[in-house]
Amino acid sequence: MDKLRLGIIGIGNIGTGHTSNILEGQCPGIRITAAADRRESRRSWIHEQLPDIPVFSEGEELIASGTCDAVLICVPHYPHPPLAISAMRHGLHVLVEKPAGVYTLQVREMNEEADRHPELAFGLMYNQRTNCVYRKLKEMIDGGELGTLKRVSWLITDWYRTQQYYDSGAWRATWAGEGGGVLLNQCPHNLDLWQWICGMPSKVHTHMYFGKWHDIEVEDDVTTFVEYPNGATGTFITSTGDAPGSNRFEITMDGARILADGRKLLLTELEMPEPEFSRTNKSAFAAPPSKTIEVETDGRNEQHSGVLNAFAAAILRGEPLVADGTEGINGLTISNAMHLSAWLGREVEIPFDEELYYSELMKRVKTSRRKDDVQAVFSDTSGTYGGV
Amino acid sequence: MDKLRLGIIGIGNIGTGHTSNILEGQCPGIRITAAADRRESRRSWIHEQLPDIPVFSEGEELIASGTCDAVLICVPHYPHPPLAISAMRHGLHVLVEKPAGVYTLQVREMNEEADRHPELAFGLMYNQRTNCVYRKLKEMIDGGELGTLKRVSWLITDWYRTQQYYDSGAWRATWAGEGGGVLLNQCPHNLDLWQWICGMPSKVHTHMYFGKWHDIEVEDDVTTFVEYPNGATGTFITSTGDAPGSNRFEITMDGARILADGRKLLLTELEMPEPEFSRTNKSAFAAPPSKTIEVETDGRNEQHSGVLNAFAAAILRGEPLVADGTEGINGLTISNAMHLSAWLGREVEIPFDEELYYSELMKRVKTSRRKDDVQAVFSDTSGTYGGV
Repeated sequence: MDKLRLGIIGIGNIGTGHTSNILEGQCPGIRITAAADRRESRRSWIHEQLPDIPVFSEGEELIASGTCDAVLICVPHYPHPPLAISAMRHGLHVLVEKPAGVYTLQVREMNEEADRHPELAFGLMYNQRTNCVYRKLKEMIDGGELGTLKRVSWLITDWYRTQQYYDSGAWRATWAGEGGGVLLNQCPHNLDLWQWICGMPSKVHTHMYFGKWHDIEVEDDVTTFVEYPNGATGTFITSTGDAPGSNRFEITMDGARILADGRKLLLTELEMPEPEFSRTNKSAFAAPPSKTIEVETDGRNEQHSGVLNAFAAAILRGEPLVADGTEGINGLTISNAMHLSAWLGREVEIPFDEELYYSELMKRVKTSRRKDDVQAVFSDTSGTYGGV
Repeated sequence: MDKLRLGIIGIGNIGTGHTSNILEGQCPGIRITAAADRRESRRSWIHEQLPDIPVFSEGEELIASGTCDAVLICVPHYPHPPLAISAMRHGLHVLVEKPAGVYTLQVREMNEEADRHPELAFGLMYNQRTNCVYRKLKEMIDGGELGTLKRVSWLITDWYRTQQYYDSGAWRATWAGEGGGVLLNQCPHNLDLWQWICGMPSKVHTHMYFGKWHDIEVEDDVTTFVEYPNGATGTFITSTGDAPGSNRFEITMDGARILADGRKLLLTELEMPEPEFSRTNKSAFAAPPSKTIEVETDGRNEQHSGVLNAFAAAILRGEPLVADGTEGINGLTISNAMHLSAWLGREVEIPFDEELYYSELMKRVKTSRRKDDVQAVFSDTSGTYGGV
């Protein structure tokens, strides 16, 4: 195999973007050999771009067609796991758009299927992991020289959306269509980066508001407190109603503070780790001397094409993925824990009761504005999806 | 009266600072005519500075001596209200160091006494209210053009203290001696500014850690979520264990975001209030156009001398105080609500059960490391105090 034969399922906003990137030559190891979308208009579009490839209306038809080595799944959230599972069972490599799914139970099934197919590549489209700032941040923290985590606060409110955005698709911001709001649609990247860099919290306590800034049924305002296994704490604040929003990711370690705003990385490193300074310094009002620098990164930020190219290289040459598919459950676990905490009005420990989460979600799906979609949630194979 | 005759009760760290400011000529309307401290060493110091004034060992003696028109109370927190009440009953004007007291019940008594003496000036040493940045911030928000409050987050962790600090006084960081940790000693200014600028929250939910970074029995790490009567939300995060700490006070309004870091004030103003933009804009991914400027202030930041001079001017010429004493209960109400929320492990509404707070505090006082001090808490007149 010199080029990966890729089928794209779902040619919505993001599926169209991936298609264009590949057609523009950004992914030399990939050839699009099939596509699927339920909308005639999107099938026409892809046919104009690639007149020689088969275009299906159902993802399952594409999967069964034998025209691809791998699929890229770009449909709405609920059908991610069932389509991925089906593709794996057909011997196809799988790259899934974020989020991995809507609830951890279904993502766990997807991961279990992936475990049964070690020969297949399984990746998540966590393109923000290619951002040099976040890569460097992870490298610095994993390196260990900065000590252990004490506090993290991520104020990530620059996800502003108008009412028109929510009115632009019947599935948008509904329990039946998306299974959540800002946490499921806008924040999966942030939640993944957060756990990728800081690890998984052990306790989550969330204050969440549903339709606070928009006429929607799901959450558009979230403030979360977390505690980590080592006792460190964190906050994660997000909204689609703040203008202008902020993106400030600040991490305090024993030996340093690091501040990332998505573009710059500022490191304040202490001359001596704080706990040692506190124990040994004999002045009541002293603080550890420190030095602040802007950290240089390699400047690379390949985003979606970077994830696609690594996926192809993994299959063609055994190189590493940007994000292993099974890691998709981590960010979703935090997301589900946040919802469960808000619904129950109390702190939730991780691991939480995933059956309880599912039943609480289904209560909301049953009364969702998007009632025509309810069946989709329960079915592995008949998901009502257009593109994301 | 051309100069106010002031008695200073408690010549510790802060009382010494006030004395020095006055002796250096920063407060032309004030003459120190008496002082009190329980420590011989501090009485000797003041006698060297002012050989002609009476120096007492007890604040009550100073109050009863007839040598002053007003008192400045700079003793530890618990005896603030009883000394203030006594001074008012002796017809003296009163300026109290922060915090107003340790628990709202005792501060309420102080305020009730003040209400019975409208002829007396009663002020709080909220010197941060003289800071041009915070004054300007309040002016901008009170002005109304920026709309209503949506979100506030104050990450105020630059209160670093070593273990030596806590070991430097037996009363420090004990339930019996201070009645709390970072909230009672370091944060009263921040809590006051927060309520002064953003108003009082109606719900408080706090995650608090006791002796997390130091060998102390009280809190040195606090993360609080609040909700305001209009539904706006906020976070307040503080610690004495973070190095380097941060001071970032960010306020989002309907029509603007304002960011104060204690020195600079950045305003991002929207061309159209966000709710109107969201309703009327027909693009799904648009955000309200905005402009960011650094706000000019009058540059004045008179701090302690500014509060003292305003106090003298209030008495001599009827001018306004920097902070009316009765407002001291506001920041303390938030502080007490945070402790109560942490102790009960649940959200607390304001107003809360003040008797419950008091009984929970007293449980901790009874087993406090500073057992010799327990009596002080229950007594109006025999507070064991040195200086702050």
